[in-house]
Amino acid sequence: MYRTHTCGELRIADNNKEVTLAGWVQTVRKFGAITFVDLRDRYGITQLLFGEKLNKVLEENPLGREFVLQATGKVNERSNKNANIPTGDIEINVSSFTILNKSAVPPFTIQDDTDGGDDLRMKYRFLDLRRNAVKKNLELRYAVNRAARNYLHSNGFMDIETPFLIKSTPEGARDFVVPSRMNPGQFYALPQSPQTFKQLLMVSGYDRYYQVVKCFRDEDLRADRQPEFTQIDCEMAFVEQEDILNMFEGMIKSIFKEVKGIDYTEKVERMTWEDAMWNYGNDKPDIRFSMKVLNLKKPASVYVNKADQSSLINGADFKVFDEAETVLAIAVPGCSEYSRKQTDELTEWVKRPQVGMKGLVFIKCLPAGQAGNADGTYKSSVDKFYSEERLKAIADAAGGKAGDLILILAGVEERTRKAISDLRMEMANRLGLRNDNEYKLLWVLDFPLFEYDEEGNRWVARHHPFTSPKPSDIETMISNDPVIHNAAEYLKHPYANIKANAYDMVLNGNEIGGGSIRIYQRELQEKMFAALGMDKEEQLHKFGFLLGAFEYGAPPHGGIAYGFDRLCAILGGSESIRDFIAFPKNNSGRDVMLDAPATIDEKQLRELQIKTDVTGD
Amino acid sequence: MYRTHTCGELRIADNNKEVTLAGWVQTVRKFGAITFVDLRDRYGITQLLFGEKLNKVLEENPLGREFVLQATGKVNERSNKNANIPTGDIEINVSSFTILNKSAVPPFTIQDDTDGGDDLRMKYRFLDLRRNAVKKNLELRYAVNRAARNYLHSNGFMDIETPFLIKSTPEGARDFVVPSRMNPGQFYALPQSPQTFKQLLMVSGYDRYYQVVKCFRDEDLRADRQPEFTQIDCEMAFVEQEDILNMFEGMIKSIFKEVKGIDYTEKVERMTWEDAMWNYGNDKPDIRFSMKVLNLKKPASVYVNKADQSSLINGADFKVFDEAETVLAIAVPGCSEYSRKQTDELTEWVKRPQVGMKGLVFIKCLPAGQAGNADGTYKSSVDKFYSEERLKAIADAAGGKAGDLILILAGVEERTRKAISDLRMEMANRLGLRNDNEYKLLWVLDFPLFEYDEEGNRWVARHHPFTSPKPSDIETMISNDPVIHNAAEYLKHPYANIKANAYDMVLNGNEIGGGSIRIYQRELQEKMFAALGMDKEEQLHKFGFLLGAFEYGAPPHGGIAYGFDRLCAILGGSESIRDFIAFPKNNSGRDVMLDAPATIDEKQLRELQIKTDVTGD
Repeated sequence: MYRTHTCGELRIADNNKEVTLAGWVQTVRKFGAITFVDLRDRYGITQLLFGEKLNKVLEENPLGREFVLQATGKVNERSNKNANIPTGDIEINVSSFTILNKSAVPPFTIQDDTDGGDDLRMKYRFLDLRRNAVKKNLELRYAVNRAARNYLHSNGFMDIETPFLIKSTPEGARDFVVPSRMNPGQFYALPQSPQTFKQLLMVSGYDRYYQVVKCFRDEDLRADRQPEFTQIDCEMAFVEQEDILNMFEGMIKSIFKEVKGIDYTEKVERMTWEDAMWNYGNDKPDIRFSMKVLNLKKPASVYVNKADQSSLINGADFKVFDEAETVLAIAVPGCSEYSRKQTDELTEWVKRPQVGMKGLVFIKCLPAGQAGNADGTYKSSVDKFYSEERLKAIADAAGGKAGDLILILAGVEERTRKAISDLRMEMANRLGLRNDNEYKLLWVLDFPLFEYDEEGNRWVARHHPFTSPKPSDIETMISNDPVIHNAAEYLKHPYANIKANAYDMVLNGNEIGGGSIRIYQRELQEKMFAALGMDKEEQLHKFGFLLGAFEYGAPPHGGIAYGFDRLCAILGGSESIRDFIAFPKNNSGRDVMLDAPATIDEKQLRELQIKTDVTGD
Repeated sequence: MYRTHTCGELRIADNNKEVTLAGWVQTVRKFGAITFVDLRDRYGITQLLFGEKLNKVLEENPLGREFVLQATGKVNERSNKNANIPTGDIEINVSSFTILNKSAVPPFTIQDDTDGGDDLRMKYRFLDLRRNAVKKNLELRYAVNRAARNYLHSNGFMDIETPFLIKSTPEGARDFVVPSRMNPGQFYALPQSPQTFKQLLMVSGYDRYYQVVKCFRDEDLRADRQPEFTQIDCEMAFVEQEDILNMFEGMIKSIFKEVKGIDYTEKVERMTWEDAMWNYGNDKPDIRFSMKVLNLKKPASVYVNKADQSSLINGADFKVFDEAETVLAIAVPGCSEYSRKQTDELTEWVKRPQVGMKGLVFIKCLPAGQAGNADGTYKSSVDKFYSEERLKAIADAAGGKAGDLILILAGVEERTRKAISDLRMEMANRLGLRNDNEYKLLWVLDFPLFEYDEEGNRWVARHHPFTSPKPSDIETMISNDPVIHNAAEYLKHPYANIKANAYDMVLNGNEIGGGSIRIYQRELQEKMFAALGMDKEEQLHKFGFLLGAFEYGAPPHGGIAYGFDRLCAILGGSESIRDFIAFPKNNSGRDVMLDAPATIDEKQLRELQIKTDVTGD
């Protein structure tokens, strides 16, 4: 062993002990005939004092940043204590030392506020990983991993490894494939998730399964997507939705407790998907703050069966509202005093291409005494179309109080809904309503089972093809033909209203986990595949093993998978999952440190009996 | 929840409780107007009693094997108790039941002694997994996983995930590769192990790393090899070999304790590679029994620098020995009374193609009183070449005692050494010296750093290119040219004698783990790569990131990896790792349940810009 102690553990109680430390040189400070060195390892930083005699040796063997140093000496109380670090009361009076390895000058500083840009730090990831900020992220990741495993273990779950070299059954995302040398012309696929395997394990009687497991999706990468990512993957048999919700509410609370020291004692809120879409404009609302959406004019989507309040805006000859597919509003607290400049800036914000609105309508709910009026008044950018009374009615419906600013967007359904949702988050950010140290969990329930695919004029699975409809909707599903005969009227097809036994867990506006109760009857599973446009042959080719398994006593079952990278990022207060992955890939799916992917030898291609066929398109 | 209890937990203390169970129908036994059903789940079996009234319902809804059943009723004390199962004192007097799912008649019985053959059970793996024998294996696997993690965690190790989509750097085994759609013409590789990543983590300061991780090797499969397998992968910084040996001796003992309830208190034995090869003919000896090999005529290999005892056989004009490259013997205890038939059978055994010897020489050490002689005599198949005195001298040298049978093999080095090693194991099996419930660990140390590759007339790494030579051999390595100018005299090359800082952990004759202290100096690593025939350009292309990392303060480090599948198999008393993998592949690398690998869509190939190019050779 190259050391007796780590750089994080010595205290005043160790005074006079002879110790040996090993670590990296963080800083070298020369003061005349003596030198101070801060020695760093995973556990902390300890100050080394090189006295006059050793100083001469140091002059011949100068230390540089990131040199690997082994030093032996006595622990001494420091005269000049450093209250900022746990070892700050002591230093080591070095009696001998060895330079274990030298270091070139690192391309960026190994500090919390490093001077290295993203690309440089990715290329030298092994140096970036030395920074305390990154280390804390990986430590948090390990703590979450450990807490989840311990919770699941104590609840009788078993970690069972599922295979990585499986069969390609692309549904939704693309598979990564692996050519088989032993079976020329054939390919394995890397799993997008262990979905079918965990279901087989339920059929096999392993009624509580978990795995912290790598999954792979060959998608066009957006920021914050990785081609390989990790799931906490779980499945249970003989359960109903309520059992899963309770079990995994327990898991996340246990993670909060173990990792963050937070007692999340309240019951996790629940919300139907319809309510989430209706009140927040998206299916993963941040409920740390209210600011609910008022549906002035109901979006057309069948998926939300609620009544709007269009009477509030109708008959005013305001074309923008009259012609819009949907009109949505939020009440932003305490912003009624926004200046013209500020409302103009907000208008510009919603007109940016990322949001894509044509404009913004606002109503200021001016409190009494403000703007020279006694009773409170309503000022709006659409004053000439709406009386103050009508403005008040709209503001009231939006939950606006004196001092609030009502923001109204109008346009085509999907874009406008996304825009109001983005605007809601933006205003909350500006108002400091999204506190990093506040955590608010939410179950979103009762998702639609199907989504309409316009291009193919057919149904696609909103979650995945193994999700069970609500028991009350099974009959609707079985007894109706999935074919949509009239594309314009797809909303009237009975399938449009079928709800899934599916659930998402949302944390502070991010989906951290999702799952469902599964289909476990062959007949219903076949109906589902058929509804998604798969003929018998394709069903058997892709999922014959699962349909076969359902013949031999499949129990009712369901499960959930957590996006482990994202969960860690949110718990670590970051937007980026990359910061919580030891060796992430960039947005082009490249590992710039390894320089991978790369060309391979002709010999490898020959052995695999494949050829590259790059056409450049 | 579909149940209030599992099928394994009810006891006499639960008498009269109203309970609901859910599980699989193991057996149905009708006795006149009542029916007994054994209901099975992961936790056990509970007997259900269907009385007269329900029996009629049963007649209309007959139960079959493997039906999924939910049953509610009262716990009753059984009149006819079954002492073989923990729930044998009680039964459930069923008041209502639901058939949750039916089952076709399974293709084999779900019992310990199943009637299903290997292929059938692989195809219906989801049913095979229901068998108690297989379940016990997976439970043991999880217990080993858990014990290893707990030990490593309590010793400050961190689980850090390394990437699966990396760069192809084939050294030794072939890589599985993954075409990149986003980078046409380029490929990722799946890791053969996280070797370089864990070393980078050491450079990054994470001084204790572990991972239970899938690895991939595209090898021609032999029995008991899988294209994907799992390692317990560990690495430590600021350590010497002794630290690693102690740490992982601790881990394996902790696994013994937690998983098997065995207190393995003695110190794990240690043996040099030379001694292992010399005394046992292989580098993973089973030391539960002695039966050491006598090197009558030393094998030519430079790797064993020991003196033989050829004077014992020389000058007898026995051509077989005189002309053989090597002559090796073992003393088999208590077999001196073997009949002609038995020695003939042994001779046939060594002549089988798998062993490949031309014959077998034996010496019987007949004890006094046996075979009609008073003092003890020596009878041999080579009586006419060797006097009884000389036979005695050979027997004595082999450690033979009165009553032993000395078996001698002669031939070319490698085959003969393997044959004596096989014969030793075979005789131990026949004599019951390999007790499944006895566990004997061994560290094999001081492996050669290099092996000679005859075909290329060059050195290859015995372990891998990152293994450090013994500190005392570094100078030899640096100051000598690796080129072998005279192939016939490669044994005289200084590299032939360089020993590695490498170690294997052996359990009952199986290598369960192996590792080494690593090179951490760029210069030495470059020398190693060069010694293996890699020019500068290739070094930088394949391992530039690692060489680069060694520039920035790499600490001394080393590690070990355990073959998790094999470790579990040995602890479970099996020869086959497949029995300990939930979804294994067959010997052609196929998953016969999934029918993978398989052809993929033309569209997938087009997107990947590759073509299959199957030539049929």
